[in-house]
Amino acid sequence: MDKNTALELLQKKSFAQLKVAFGEMMPADAAELITHLIEDDNDFGERELTFLFRILPKDLAAEVFTFLDSDLQRVLINAFSDKELRSVLDELFLDDTVDIIEEMPANVVSRILKAADPEKRRQINELLNYPEDSAGSIMTTEFVFFRKDSTVEDALDRIRSIGIVKETVYTCYVTEARKLIGTISLLELLVAEPEEILENIMTSNIVFARVHDDQEEVSKLFRKHDLASLPVVDDEDRLVGIITFDDVMDVMQDESAEDMAKLGAVLPNEDSYFDTSVLKHVKSRIVWLLVLMISATLTGMITNHFEAQISAIPLLVAFMPMLMGTGGNSGSQASTMIIQGMAMDEIRLKDFFKVIFKEFRVAFVCALILSAVNFVRIMLFYHDLRIAAVVSLTLIGTVVMAKLLGCILPMLAKRLKIDPAVMSAPLLSTLVDSCSMLLYFTIAMHLLDF
Amino acid sequence: MDKNTALELLQKKSFAQLKVAFGEMMPADAAELITHLIEDDNDFGERELTFLFRILPKDLAAEVFTFLDSDLQRVLINAFSDKELRSVLDELFLDDTVDIIEEMPANVVSRILKAADPEKRRQINELLNYPEDSAGSIMTTEFVFFRKDSTVEDALDRIRSIGIVKETVYTCYVTEARKLIGTISLLELLVAEPEEILENIMTSNIVFARVHDDQEEVSKLFRKHDLASLPVVDDEDRLVGIITFDDVMDVMQDESAEDMAKLGAVLPNEDSYFDTSVLKHVKSRIVWLLVLMISATLTGMITNHFEAQISAIPLLVAFMPMLMGTGGNSGSQASTMIIQGMAMDEIRLKDFFKVIFKEFRVAFVCALILSAVNFVRIMLFYHDLRIAAVVSLTLIGTVVMAKLLGCILPMLAKRLKIDPAVMSAPLLSTLVDSCSMLLYFTIAMHLLDF
Repeated sequence: MDKNTALELLQKKSFAQLKVAFGEMMPADAAELITHLIEDDNDFGERELTFLFRILPKDLAAEVFTFLDSDLQRVLINAFSDKELRSVLDELFLDDTVDIIEEMPANVVSRILKAADPEKRRQINELLNYPEDSAGSIMTTEFVFFRKDSTVEDALDRIRSIGIVKETVYTCYVTEARKLIGTISLLELLVAEPEEILENIMTSNIVFARVHDDQEEVSKLFRKHDLASLPVVDDEDRLVGIITFDDVMDVMQDESAEDMAKLGAVLPNEDSYFDTSVLKHVKSRIVWLLVLMISATLTGMITNHFEAQISAIPLLVAFMPMLMGTGGNSGSQASTMIIQGMAMDEIRLKDFFKVIFKEFRVAFVCALILSAVNFVRIMLFYHDLRIAAVVSLTLIGTVVMAKLLGCILPMLAKRLKIDPAVMSAPLLSTLVDSCSMLLYFTIAMHLLDF
Repeated sequence: MDKNTALELLQKKSFAQLKVAFGEMMPADAAELITHLIEDDNDFGERELTFLFRILPKDLAAEVFTFLDSDLQRVLINAFSDKELRSVLDELFLDDTVDIIEEMPANVVSRILKAADPEKRRQINELLNYPEDSAGSIMTTEFVFFRKDSTVEDALDRIRSIGIVKETVYTCYVTEARKLIGTISLLELLVAEPEEILENIMTSNIVFARVHDDQEEVSKLFRKHDLASLPVVDDEDRLVGIITFDDVMDVMQDESAEDMAKLGAVLPNEDSYFDTSVLKHVKSRIVWLLVLMISATLTGMITNHFEAQISAIPLLVAFMPMLMGTGGNSGSQASTMIIQGMAMDEIRLKDFFKVIFKEFRVAFVCALILSAVNFVRIMLFYHDLRIAAVVSLTLIGTVVMAKLLGCILPMLAKRLKIDPAVMSAPLLSTLVDSCSMLLYFTIAMHLLDF
């Protein structure tokens, strides 16, 4: 069903037909349709949203709810009766409930907690207490575990009785005194003899995370071992939750957005572009702009020092943008490669000299090519051998220096346990710009007989 | 087991112990250990690698093999007897086999194809024929499907008999004349009555991809619907394969690396940093460096036009790096936000004017703050009201223009179906630099009475 069909059915009050049409949609598509209706159509407001949501088949409603923006979720929660709220919450997985709560204002949170039963409320509070971006904060406490002396038949019976409620029963966990000692997949249970004891058929090589591990480490474990779910244990090795692949995909998405933001000199921000206010956008951008503006001043001070030379040969100024630009790009190419290599564990700190040697060779070849093209260009346009020599020599020095700094700074940052992407950007551009201008005017002074 | 323990056991020829120790490791960890041994230790060569691999427990060996770098895989395949090669291939999933083949030289490929049985060879050839980055190229043809009139009991029996061979049997597919008509999860089979007919309990709302869909669209579907696997159909709607979440995580990783590379003005490259030769590194970097160097020349030509003004007041040159730097950063902040917003479907093309209005307000506030700080700084250091006014006015114009170009260019690129990240970077920096210099010297000419 598309937007126009939905609007038409609403206007014709063909609610039964609307309900059927929604029933045939995937929950995420239904949520997207509802979001577009409210965004694109001024007649479609909060009242219509609540009305439409109440039309949805009950089992679909809760799923659609999890796919809505937090703004729309808030509107709906405010419109719900206590009974409606409870019935939606009952259908939600615990980690989705916690995700929703984290986005809600205090009064909505207390309504949600009041509507949950005491056991669920205890679990929600526990999950809310883990630090942001930790394994604990993205796990769910709903998982299936068995004692090591259970039989395969007991286990299958228990899974049948629990049914579809638990988020991942395809990997089941075997515990002893609440400590995780093994895993077994549903498929393994299915092909095993019914009277077999779990301890004899479980896998005891377990990949697991601890509640305080960083979510980025968790995502690395998933990718390294191709996991569908990962058990999480507390400081006493007790199994307290599991993380599923879908939450890790969200983490990967967020981390990649964060990296892109850092490279674009924007402070990361969790809200979407339009949900962020103008002032919040300014706040996430102005810091870097100020830092970079102030640091560019250093380069200005260096050129200022060579005022006499500039007055004498103002043509020198014409090559400044090219030199600084090429230096900046050469440096950021190197730092991008190194930051990415380190993030993927392809480059380790002990490879320091190997990296420098490699970058030096890459830089040298790039520098020779750029410098040759540039020499020819200046000779063609300005017929000035000395200027061409000055600019081309500076270019070689600038590119080599920029590429070396571009690999040294991120590795240094990592060694000092600072985020390489954040530290290297401003320092790199400042250093490359000022060094290249210093080099340029120094070479000019010597070759142009001032 | 760590590297030193493994080396020690090898030297002491305690092979039985070594085999046990490997048996307790996760395949990815064992592969990592072997890779580090061969990378860090000069005594550990191809002979040792093959020897170690032969020690591995047989079921672990094939899995470890998939986690090794393609260089090491090639060495091993060359060392294998035909029988060994066949036994490793038999344990591999089809999509992993295809991934390996894609990295191998022709002679190795033909050995692998010869070792595979005819049916597997046919499937491998089929998968190899799909275009790179298409859904077909990342799918596997190993999946479980049933006819719609099968009973639950039949289905479970079939799953038990197929066992652990198929990659994902947690979602089973129901077909009619090879066309996909429904899905059913293993859990649903387990809780259903044994004599129930699949058609009555299957889900007929299906999310699927077509063989020629782009892998980025596939990854969006996984994230949108929180999928563990996705069926792939051909042009006649026949089910031909499935894609599993672990392959999608690899796609996400690759796409994010590709985006980072584009932002860093490097042509994407699939090999790891050290596996790429110096000349290949040069090739993936020199194109952008040349383009950006040539385009920076435009800015140089503009400043060259104002030679007289520069000779008269060389202090003007001191603010050029700051103006160009701040303009460049303001623009790339905006373009990063917009490119990311479009990639996440938060910003659509019809939001064009909404985006421009928002960026204009953000730009204006940023510009005022930067310009005020800058005005005070120049007054403090140079006590020159007119220069301070010229620079601060230019800064306001530059920041506003840069942010507007930074949002217009990526949206324009998308409209023209060009990759926004690739098109906007060089055009943006060239336009911003030259416009800001033009603005600077024009304002200077008017306010400084040349």
